[in-house]
Amino acid sequence: MKPYATLTPAERNGEYARLQGRFDALKAKGLSLNMARGKPGKQQLDLASDIFGLMQDPKDYVSGGMDVRNYGEMRGLPAARALFADILGCKPEQVFAGGNSSLQLMYDTIAKAYTHGMLHSPRPWCKEETVKWLCPAPGYDRHFKVTETFGFELVTIPMTESGPDMDAVEEAVKDPAVKGIWCVPKYSNPEGVIYSEDTIRRLAALSPAAPDFLIMWDNAYCVHEFEGDYVPFPDILSLCAEAGHPDLVFEFASTSKITLPGAGVACFACSEANMAHMETLLAPQVISFDKVNQQRHVLYLRDKAHTLELMKKHAAIMGPKFRCVADTLDREIAPLGIASWRRPKGGYFVSFNAMPGTAKRTLALCGEAGVTMTSAGATFPYGKDPQDSNIRIAPSLPPVEELEQAMEVFCVCLKMAALEKLGI
Amino acid sequence: MKPYATLTPAERNGEYARLQGRFDALKAKGLSLNMARGKPGKQQLDLASDIFGLMQDPKDYVSGGMDVRNYGEMRGLPAARALFADILGCKPEQVFAGGNSSLQLMYDTIAKAYTHGMLHSPRPWCKEETVKWLCPAPGYDRHFKVTETFGFELVTIPMTESGPDMDAVEEAVKDPAVKGIWCVPKYSNPEGVIYSEDTIRRLAALSPAAPDFLIMWDNAYCVHEFEGDYVPFPDILSLCAEAGHPDLVFEFASTSKITLPGAGVACFACSEANMAHMETLLAPQVISFDKVNQQRHVLYLRDKAHTLELMKKHAAIMGPKFRCVADTLDREIAPLGIASWRRPKGGYFVSFNAMPGTAKRTLALCGEAGVTMTSAGATFPYGKDPQDSNIRIAPSLPPVEELEQAMEVFCVCLKMAALEKLGI
Repeated sequence: MKPYATLTPAERNGEYARLQGRFDALKAKGLSLNMARGKPGKQQLDLASDIFGLMQDPKDYVSGGMDVRNYGEMRGLPAARALFADILGCKPEQVFAGGNSSLQLMYDTIAKAYTHGMLHSPRPWCKEETVKWLCPAPGYDRHFKVTETFGFELVTIPMTESGPDMDAVEEAVKDPAVKGIWCVPKYSNPEGVIYSEDTIRRLAALSPAAPDFLIMWDNAYCVHEFEGDYVPFPDILSLCAEAGHPDLVFEFASTSKITLPGAGVACFACSEANMAHMETLLAPQVISFDKVNQQRHVLYLRDKAHTLELMKKHAAIMGPKFRCVADTLDREIAPLGIASWRRPKGGYFVSFNAMPGTAKRTLALCGEAGVTMTSAGATFPYGKDPQDSNIRIAPSLPPVEELEQAMEVFCVCLKMAALEKLGI
Repeated sequence: MKPYATLTPAERNGEYARLQGRFDALKAKGLSLNMARGKPGKQQLDLASDIFGLMQDPKDYVSGGMDVRNYGEMRGLPAARALFADILGCKPEQVFAGGNSSLQLMYDTIAKAYTHGMLHSPRPWCKEETVKWLCPAPGYDRHFKVTETFGFELVTIPMTESGPDMDAVEEAVKDPAVKGIWCVPKYSNPEGVIYSEDTIRRLAALSPAAPDFLIMWDNAYCVHEFEGDYVPFPDILSLCAEAGHPDLVFEFASTSKITLPGAGVACFACSEANMAHMETLLAPQVISFDKVNQQRHVLYLRDKAHTLELMKKHAAIMGPKFRCVADTLDREIAPLGIASWRRPKGGYFVSFNAMPGTAKRTLALCGEAGVTMTSAGATFPYGKDPQDSNIRIAPSLPPVEELEQAMEVFCVCLKMAALEKLGI
């Protein structure tokens, strides 16, 4: 097949008619397939089944002299804090082990800044006239939504293959109303890029006009390679401290995509001064998070090395799914010159750029044929992609055979939308 | 022993000297005993050990067609919502099943009112000049702290033996700045009283000036009798609806003192209109709470009847502890006419009123002798008891033999403080 741009109108019409036939046939199958969210599939959930057999022995109820079943120890079980410190490369005393959701910890951090203010805030953010927030895009819709719900003005920062456009970031932070930035530094959502060392160093060295500027460092995919070996990653807390800004960053992580999505353990990591401040703000809210589940995870995951072994098993399930997506795109779409995409080696997404002006139409067609995708635009602030181009493909949930069907539908819809745009 | 008020100065001096001797002897033992918080003891934790043996069978991972291990279902597992509805006497669709902490759900409800506003709020509470909050006192320090941390003005409402002084409440809610009230309606913390039906009906029938007035109904001890049979309790949601104010109340409960304090399941219950509003506000914060732990609790507790059987086992442990406290006080303190207290049949506390002006001194002496109690004043807004009289005794944590020692210390210290006040 030739690139679509080189087709004559008659060739385009012929191609569209053929695709319409395939589309109708696919639609007639009554499919119901979902590539909308980064939701692990059943095979992955089953990897962690052994976790339910733990906590049978009364000696497991005690950790470091503490009965994990009772109230207390707001910062989390010391053994769980040590486990996360091992995985993230920071110090145990910088880690706060929480409940089952890192999103909730992120929301709560922003909420505390809004209601009470961060360590270096002149006033709570709810008392500021304007709060602006940097959103590298394409990015994670749930991040953007957290800052949107507090009425912040979302500022788009272009993503590059080495992370956020740092020239744009350095320029933007000169505005004292700019209070922070969202980052997914490893296998970014949805781009799948790993921030370069230069980008990370420039982030750590930022000197924002706002004294309480906050880097929200969501290290969601810190050990989530599905191709190749574990990629070591710098500890942002140390880098910020070295640059003289130890309080600039809050890091987040969880075991949602290591053990169980709905029943894992999440954490944040920050400077000890930030930790003391957060503890004061959290004291009225929390007696303690679920230390039984923290202990279950300590017993199950043990340490970073053992966790990485488990991640190899996830990779054996995830790898084929991502290869299915990439191979289908290479075969079906690459020759047509109507789109570009990345081929990540970890994380949960493939970021796909359709011909500008065709993302919404593509996904509307997918929906008609029973394939649910993340809404077009979701990867941009306010859900509005100015190019109407970016599509987040999330291949983790369906089994490979369903994924093949879903990708077939996707490719047909994408081609139809492109031809409609080119003129038929 | 005669009432202290009838002693001559010489008799008081003699008594004080004897007590000083006992105090020194107790202090020399180097005790370390804790009656500070409503923390269940180890025997109670062990009651629930079987819960760790559940979730072994893959069929338990599925509830109502939903894989409980994966993301999703923000309002909680339907089976868990049904369990709480059974216990509380409301409808499953009125229940939101959350994480391990009802305090966190309460804090989040107030926080959402502050940042975004409740269903009938003209504006978020952070935009109000003044927010006032009714605090029946003696009451629960953590409740007061939640409303204090958001800068609300705490208004003390006297507690009576049938609940909050409703004349005072009805008068107070005429002020549109008064946005809500804390209630622990069954075995109130620390008074141990059950709100009378008249009190409950008057609360449900309130017509506050604030359109977004909120009854925070913390039904923490809904099935927590330690003497006698389960006491049926009206469903506040129905009563508010009957009175024409279905959105007036949020109810809270948890299994913290049914299964495990640190690893139970908490819930809130409210009108369906409130639920829809909360869901909108919670959507940016939460994908879903820990449904695995919810499922574990559904399998373990089954229903209200089975839960009440478990509570009988708790009662068999708690009953003797409360009898130890009451019997010691009857024997040691009653004849002296220096204090009064209630004898509750459920809940976690004994509310004790020392001679005015002696609570702080009593607890300072207790501290010297190695017995930690809830700080004096904690049961009043801002931690300030205007009478310096109320002391919350929490006998659940120590085994009976330690409790006997702690009560011995407490009685000696109380007598010393009373004599000091009377003049020695």
